[in-house]
Amino acid sequence: MKIGVFGSGIVGQTIAGKVAELGHDVMVGTRDPAKLQDWPGKIGGNVRVGSLAEAAAHGEILFNATNGGGSLEALALAKEANLNGKILIDIANPLDFSQGMPPTLFVSNTDSLGEQIQHTYPQVKVVKTLNTVTASLMVNPQQLADGDHHLFVSGNDADAKAQVVHLLTSWFGWRQIIDLGDITTARGTEMYLPIWLRLWGALGTGLFNIKVVK
Amino acid sequence: MKIGVFGSGIVGQTIAGKVAELGHDVMVGTRDPAKLQDWPGKIGGNVRVGSLAEAAAHGEILFNATNGGGSLEALALAKEANLNGKILIDIANPLDFSQGMPPTLFVSNTDSLGEQIQHTYPQVKVVKTLNTVTASLMVNPQQLADGDHHLFVSGNDADAKAQVVHLLTSWFGWRQIIDLGDITTARGTEMYLPIWLRLWGALGTGLFNIKVVK
Repeated sequence: MKIGVFGSGIVGQTIAGKVAELGHDVMVGTRDPAKLQDWPGKIGGNVRVGSLAEAAAHGEILFNATNGGGSLEALALAKEANLNGKILIDIANPLDFSQGMPPTLFVSNTDSLGEQIQHTYPQVKVVKTLNTVTASLMVNPQQLADGDHHLFVSGNDADAKAQVVHLLTSWFGWRQIIDLGDITTARGTEMYLPIWLRLWGALGTGLFNIKVVK
Repeated sequence: MKIGVFGSGIVGQTIAGKVAELGHDVMVGTRDPAKLQDWPGKIGGNVRVGSLAEAAAHGEILFNATNGGGSLEALALAKEANLNGKILIDIANPLDFSQGMPPTLFVSNTDSLGEQIQHTYPQVKVVKTLNTVTASLMVNPQQLADGDHHLFVSGNDADAKAQVVHLLTSWFGWRQIIDLGDITTARGTEMYLPIWLRLWGALGTGLFNIKVVK
């Protein structure tokens, strides 16, 4: 399958590397592809680097792995016509580092970054997920408690969510995924970041997740 | 031990009932004690009802189980002189129901209700905890997965947190408690409410909690 990944940071590298390892045709989209000429070799597999618009045009399914603060600008550069009708798996969190550490959120409570993206691109099928765990867990949940912990999905399109759940399960090995509801429920997972950040501090590692016990 | 519980809603009833059952001398403080004349008999045990100021004066340890929106007003009625030097276990969440369901938060992101209370009463030892679980779980975590799930504490005073952790363990049976840090970390547990509310909707029950898996 042709996959476009926006963002060349640790999340983009991790997603692109894993998806390519599975044999898919991956293009990472970044603002300045020239800077990353020797980059595909580093993460291995069949990964090309292109502009955001090229990666968007390439992908049948798209991942938003850009920094939250730059996501809307990156999507604008990807161009709406290249996004429309596609599933966009939104991993970004609206972290604001301008006030120091730990970061605050630049949108929260009555809105979310997931909603802003869906609102800006009404013909894109935005599915918010993976934003509650550190990069290495996203693609390898089994490394922790045999995968006995939870991931969440939020989105307006039921078929798109079902496809994403299938992909998270079959590609990455997620065993437990809870559908929280429409894209407004992205407020829940984005506002989980403040406790995630404090747990990171308290536990001394980002390699943790939560299991919903009922 | 003499315990004061502010608030006569389901959280106040649950805490007061359990603590009294353990043999402690409990006074519930409420704005209008006359309305609750026959109330102690309902929840059983050695529970008296008084004004907020009477309950504050009575308790060696205090619980804030008022609605978040009324907490600062309730504490003002309890009177600072009755609160100073004591541990105040703050269970309240800053839920704003004025915009419909699910509620938003009236303070979040760069501040929290726990911090507002600590800031308003600098001589009170505010420990934020229990606000991440439904009332019946607060006093009986063992009913779920033998108690194999987590509670969090936030507060500036290490000794006060240690006392509260001891109390949560020995009185209520909590087995796993994570100290998130100072009272600013209350932002984390209060901002967890939006995902808690969506999980409540998705799971169809409030009788759940999270286990931190690492």
